[in-house]
Amino acid sequence: MTVVACAGYENGRRIADLGIEDCASFLGPPGRFVWIGLHEPSAEVLANLQRQFGLHELAVEDAFRAHQRPKIDVYDRSLFLVLRTARLEGDGVLYGETHVFVGCGYVITVRHGASASYLPVRERCEATPALLGNGEDFVLYAIMDFVVDNYIPIVTAIEDQVDEIDDAVRAGVMSHETIHRIAHLRRELLRLRRTVAPMLDVCGRLQRFDMPFIDPPVRPYYTDVYDHVLHVNESIDILRDVLAAAFETHLLLASNRQNDVTRKLAGWAAILAVPTAIAGIYGMNFEHMPELSQVWAYPAVLLVILAVCVTLYLRFKRIGWL
Amino acid sequence: MTVVACAGYENGRRIADLGIEDCASFLGPPGRFVWIGLHEPSAEVLANLQRQFGLHELAVEDAFRAHQRPKIDVYDRSLFLVLRTARLEGDGVLYGETHVFVGCGYVITVRHGASASYLPVRERCEATPALLGNGEDFVLYAIMDFVVDNYIPIVTAIEDQVDEIDDAVRAGVMSHETIHRIAHLRRELLRLRRTVAPMLDVCGRLQRFDMPFIDPPVRPYYTDVYDHVLHVNESIDILRDVLAAAFETHLLLASNRQNDVTRKLAGWAAILAVPTAIAGIYGMNFEHMPELSQVWAYPAVLLVILAVCVTLYLRFKRIGWL
Amino acid sequence: MTVVACAGYENGRRIADLGIEDCASFLGPPGRFVWIGLHEPSAEVLANLQRQFGLHELAVEDAFRAHQRPKIDVYDRSLFLVLRTARLEGDGVLYGETHVFVGCGYVITVRHGASASYLPVRERCEATPALLGNGEDFVLYAIMDFVVDNYIPIVTAIEDQVDEIDDAVRAGVMSHETIHRIAHLRRELLRLRRTVAPMLDVCGRLQRFDMPFIDPPVRPYYTDVYDHVLHVNESIDILRDVLAAAFETHLLLASNRQNDVTRKLAGWAAILAVPTAIAGIYGMNFEHMPELSQVWAYPAVLLVILAVCVTLYLRFKRIGWL
Amino acid sequence: MTVVACAGYENGRRIADLGIEDCASFLGPPGRFVWIGLHEPSAEVLANLQRQFGLHELAVEDAFRAHQRPKIDVYDRSLFLVLRTARLEGDGVLYGETHVFVGCGYVITVRHGASASYLPVRERCEATPALLGNGEDFVLYAIMDFVVDNYIPIVTAIEDQVDEIDDAVRAGVMSHETIHRIAHLRRELLRLRRTVAPMLDVCGRLQRFDMPFIDPPVRPYYTDVYDHVLHVNESIDILRDVLAAAFETHLLLASNRQNDVTRKLAGWAAILAVPTAIAGIYGMNFEHMPELSQVWAYPAVLLVILAVCVTLYLRFKRIGWL
Amino acid sequence: MTVVACAGYENGRRIADLGIEDCASFLGPPGRFVWIGLHEPSAEVLANLQRQFGLHELAVEDAFRAHQRPKIDVYDRSLFLVLRTARLEGDGVLYGETHVFVGCGYVITVRHGASASYLPVRERCEATPALLGNGEDFVLYAIMDFVVDNYIPIVTAIEDQVDEIDDAVRAGVMSHETIHRIAHLRRELLRLRRTVAPMLDVCGRLQRFDMPFIDPPVRPYYTDVYDHVLHVNESIDILRDVLAAAFETHLLLASNRQNDVTRKLAGWAAILAVPTAIAGIYGMNFEHMPELSQVWAYPAVLLVILAVCVTLYLRFKRIGWL
Repeated sequence: MTVVACAGYENGRRIADLGIEDCASFLGPPGRFVWIGLHEPSAEVLANLQRQFGLHELAVEDAFRAHQRPKIDVYDRSLFLVLRTARLEGDGVLYGETHVFVGCGYVITVRHGASASYLPVRERCEATPALLGNGEDFVLYAIMDFVVDNYIPIVTAIEDQVDEIDDAVRAGVMSHETIHRIAHLRRELLRLRRTVAPMLDVCGRLQRFDMPFIDPPVRPYYTDVYDHVLHVNESIDILRDVLAAAFETHLLLASNRQNDVTRKLAGWAAILAVPTAIAGIYGMNFEHMPELSQVWAYPAVLLVILAVCVTLYLRFKRIGWL
Repeated sequence: MTVVACAGYENGRRIADLGIEDCASFLGPPGRFVWIGLHEPSAEVLANLQRQFGLHELAVEDAFRAHQRPKIDVYDRSLFLVLRTARLEGDGVLYGETHVFVGCGYVITVRHGASASYLPVRERCEATPALLGNGEDFVLYAIMDFVVDNYIPIVTAIEDQVDEIDDAVRAGVMSHETIHRIAHLRRELLRLRRTVAPMLDVCGRLQRFDMPFIDPPVRPYYTDVYDHVLHVNESIDILRDVLAAAFETHLLLASNRQNDVTRKLAGWAAILAVPTAIAGIYGMNFEHMPELSQVWAYPAVLLVILAVCVTLYLRFKRIGWL
Repeated sequence: MTVVACAGYENGRRIADLGIEDCASFLGPPGRFVWIGLHEPSAEVLANLQRQFGLHELAVEDAFRAHQRPKIDVYDRSLFLVLRTARLEGDGVLYGETHVFVGCGYVITVRHGASASYLPVRERCEATPALLGNGEDFVLYAIMDFVVDNYIPIVTAIEDQVDEIDDAVRAGVMSHETIHRIAHLRRELLRLRRTVAPMLDVCGRLQRFDMPFIDPPVRPYYTDVYDHVLHVNESIDILRDVLAAAFETHLLLASNRQNDVTRKLAGWAAILAVPTAIAGIYGMNFEHMPELSQVWAYPAVLLVILAVCVTLYLRFKRIGWL
Repeated sequence: MTVVACAGYENGRRIADLGIEDCASFLGPPGRFVWIGLHEPSAEVLANLQRQFGLHELAVEDAFRAHQRPKIDVYDRSLFLVLRTARLEGDGVLYGETHVFVGCGYVITVRHGASASYLPVRERCEATPALLGNGEDFVLYAIMDFVVDNYIPIVTAIEDQVDEIDDAVRAGVMSHETIHRIAHLRRELLRLRRTVAPMLDVCGRLQRFDMPFIDPPVRPYYTDVYDHVLHVNESIDILRDVLAAAFETHLLLASNRQNDVTRKLAGWAAILAVPTAIAGIYGMNFEHMPELSQVWAYPAVLLVILAVCVTLYLRFKRIGWL
Repeated sequence: MTVVACAGYENGRRIADLGIEDCASFLGPPGRFVWIGLHEPSAEVLANLQRQFGLHELAVEDAFRAHQRPKIDVYDRSLFLVLRTARLEGDGVLYGETHVFVGCGYVITVRHGASASYLPVRERCEATPALLGNGEDFVLYAIMDFVVDNYIPIVTAIEDQVDEIDDAVRAGVMSHETIHRIAHLRRELLRLRRTVAPMLDVCGRLQRFDMPFIDPPVRPYYTDVYDHVLHVNESIDILRDVLAAAFETHLLLASNRQNDVTRKLAGWAAILAVPTAIAGIYGMNFEHMPELSQVWAYPAVLLVILAVCVTLYLRFKRIGWL
């Protein structure tokens, strides 16, 4: 099913369900427009729409290619937008793409990959006819708002994980698993940022410049979307900073711990080397070792060993090695 | 209690305490305006004010949502601002949010979370009627000035802690505790910067552009607020640099210390291995070991061991290993 | 062979194959232009063309020098472009350069080094006379599109390698070989970026400014090329970030692993030092060591050694050293 | 003494020493202006001047507060500047602040903290009446030039120390003391940069924009000051880069050295473990060890030990461990 | 010798060799200009020229000071430029400075330090009178082109060294010497960048803005110089990136190698500790050790020792420690 929905609207109310082949004939009286939702459509469907609405050749070509950068192309009195979508699905993030053709009398969305259906947007718009009466520019706003709102739970989920990790680091040194988890989150953030950052340009341009058919009363809505993208983008940057700082902190802690271990190792090695060395000497088989025949020699040597070991131990303790 | 205060002003003097339901009726004669302070108000209160003052729908929607980015929205002849507040409370920092609607004849503040009450601002304004006579734009200035001034003690407190840490680092290598404290401060600075940096945009826009109802005589006051935010922001950046440099310094010191310890360990291990190895040889039980029966053998071996150890010790001392 | 092709076009159709010496005489009727493809031409050929088409002296001088930065020079009503080309050839990347002179009635491409032939571009253009009828500006677009499209497989190939490496890192610590491979990829990315980044300026200028003879209907095509370069450039930046993050992750993992090994070493060294020290003491040859003659002494000592070793082992196990 | 000097000038010549209370009465004839130097003045003095010259309230308020960011405030036809001063005093740097009010007919400097006296500036100006005849804008230039010139010896002093450190690093690995010295210099550079960087904005604005009462003939002088600040700022950035690079170099050297030491330790430990292990075996007290009774056994074991040790030694030498 | 050359030109041809004292009298007929080359001139010479050509006081002051930042000062209808020169001389780089006064009818170059003589520039200009006929702006171009061209061999020389180092790193870990060489190159690049980066501004301003007396036909030449500086600057940045990446790669390799060595050390220490511990036990002198009198005991212990050592060896081999 490539055509998800195709309906005609007049003054903000849905008044006709149209066939895709000749929906342009619905137009004519002012205040009317067609809203078409497609999902990975065939070349014929797009060629048909291109003919009906006079879509630009380059835009139609682009609409077939996935994996594009979010962008906004302005053709005379029509727009072509590439939006990158992302939504949380279980533990993972599903990325998709939506291409939107907007012009006088039509809004056409073309979904690719895991991009979510826009039926909820349509329903919400139809529930507020006063706003939908603003026309095509309001529909475009509603779509973009939906796309951007879907970014927010992803950021929140990553924020939760970062907080967990931060607590873990505070409790001690990171485990291998934590390091891998951080690396994974950093990668996820890079990917998300690649989606969100160019959306910032797109929204910024829609909000700032005199775009065709964005009427003044609708403009504040675009400013609102822009603020949301800005917020998401900023959150991503902060999270990246937090993770980078966690890495640095860990490096310092690990280097401190390495120092501690090496000093402990050195300390005990020194203490234990004392009995070995002294005992080795009295284990030699020379015939003439006068001490060997003394009654007090054995306990004396044991005492000496003990004394040296205790002295070393106390000294190492004092300088903080043990 | 959602309505903290609601008063009518004329030429800089408070002349009436108004009910929230029909305060707009106070307006009319020129030089009059209403200043309303709300704290997490109910939907009805806001809807009522929206009707009375014609607030924009999007602004009212925003005023219910906490956790927004500081921003300034311009609607025709009115402004909607989101300000992020922060103040020192004991050892911690309390973050809050204040939303401000300003337009011809009204200033409405909506506090969320830990945002401090603006009653002191109101009192200070009422104490200088000449300035308050400037009208709504001066009230907005007074609020922003208050918000920004509350940032400064936080920065000062962090600066004091950073100085302490810096002294600690200068005295030697950081302890685990110091590293955790630095990590904590870095995080705190990131959070504070997230609050202050967008305030820079907000103040910058108010100061630079031809904003509705910011009269020329009031503009220098906004420049003043802008300078303060700039100062706070700069201090935060400097502190971040100082802490990052402290981290780097520590890494170098730790790597130097690790080197010292390893060399000490290597040196003593070498010295103590000598008696062990020699004594081991004369501890072997071969029947034919001619040295064993010599009278001078035992003292000679002891001397050799001593000589080798002393030589090694001196050599290691000379190359700086011990 | 320095002259690869030299043909005359009218209204988008090739109507004549021209000699290089007097091809300018073909011009005259409106809608005609000459498209010349050269490969490392001799000075005479270029001097001849300079005379025929009035090319600027500096541009001609530049056309002899390889290893230039991509750039666009505007001379009155003509352009001179330096494009850096790159294409995948086996496992390596071949870099080349193409210089383009464009003006009223002519397009001259001068290839240097490994720059690919533009015959496919010519064929594709001749296959769509309606588009080619746009004239010289469309030819330039077609060339630039070809150059930029050749970057994409290189980025894709590097992306594949980065993904492989990322999997390898996830599986454990990097080998020396992996580190060298990453270093190699980083260098390759630096080199590619040096090619692509200035192309961004070139395409941006062609798309934005009022360039001579880029007619409005052709402009969207340049926007399209610009979007592709932007996409390639962004991909390169992301890859650089990913590799840098992989380096950082590895450093942490390696420091963790070093800690583990050192602690294991310290733990076993301590355990094994116990029997050595105790056995050393009872290996001394004193005549008066009362324990030696006890029947229970030997098993008792063995038990003590075992007990101390097991205790140490369990303790090290509990604190995670073993 | 809060009033350092207060004099009236006409056409570049000092013609009157004025009392602070009614110096504004000196004005009137064109080409006249008053130049007042204050040091931490009392509130009354400033209030008096505010009345006489119509200084802006906010500017006067600021003039009481130290620790401000360098800035320039433009009020109608007058300026208020905050300049941060720094000068070398013995081994340390003394930071201070000077606030300047400039307007038609007056220049007022207010020094805070360690800011140097401007008497030398006054003397130099009075020595060149032709230049001083340019009026208030030239006086402001002279003050700023003096402030900026005082930065230069500080940078030079730090450069000298950095060169010394660089030589020390080249000679080998850094000592703890050197690391601390670098950390100290980095901090000093941060502090100096905090002073100089905003001065860049101040000078840039004075040079670029159409400022009130900066006459065209005086503008090149401001460009000159701007160039000096730019130079100082650039030097600071370079020094920061040099010190950061020194840190990185040291980390590499230290890691190399750590490797060397560890390998040496490992090598000698292996060599010395050989006689210990072999001698240990022949030190066992078994009754039936046939080798023990052979005449050649002892020298043979000694030879084996020697051979193994020498072999190991040579091998470690060859792979560069010893 | 401070006056290197002083000649008068008319329509691109040298028509007179002038004395420095009254060369301005040569001017008058249109198309004439004077080109003077000075090397560290005395104050009198400059004062004389200042009088003759009306040079600005600040420019003349600057012309005495060395160690300035490259800059361009615009005075009404004349320019003052500070150019930093650099050229390869043996293994080192010689830095110098050239100050240029340009105005209607004169070009004056003032060389400081190791700045190369401009006689070759003069000769080359005189060889192409058609170009030199463009006047003073062409002379300035020729000088700047010469200065910029001298940067290129320096960059190439550093590139060669970086390639060598890169090969060395690829072959294994860096030696101390290599690290010092990299540190040296980084410093050299910093110094070179300090020279080139501000030249970028100077050239950019000359190319972009409407400068006095840079006629339209000469402007493309300035664009050409600008492109060269851009190229040099970019090469420097790339080299800095390459060296920084080499440092990072080395850190990873060194940390890997350290791991390898530590694990080898730990492995062999464990293996060799086994015979020492077991032999120690049977070297004890207890009277009642039943095993000692068994015939099979000695070979059995030897076998046990061998078995444990081989098992450990194989196990360490399997986990990659040996």
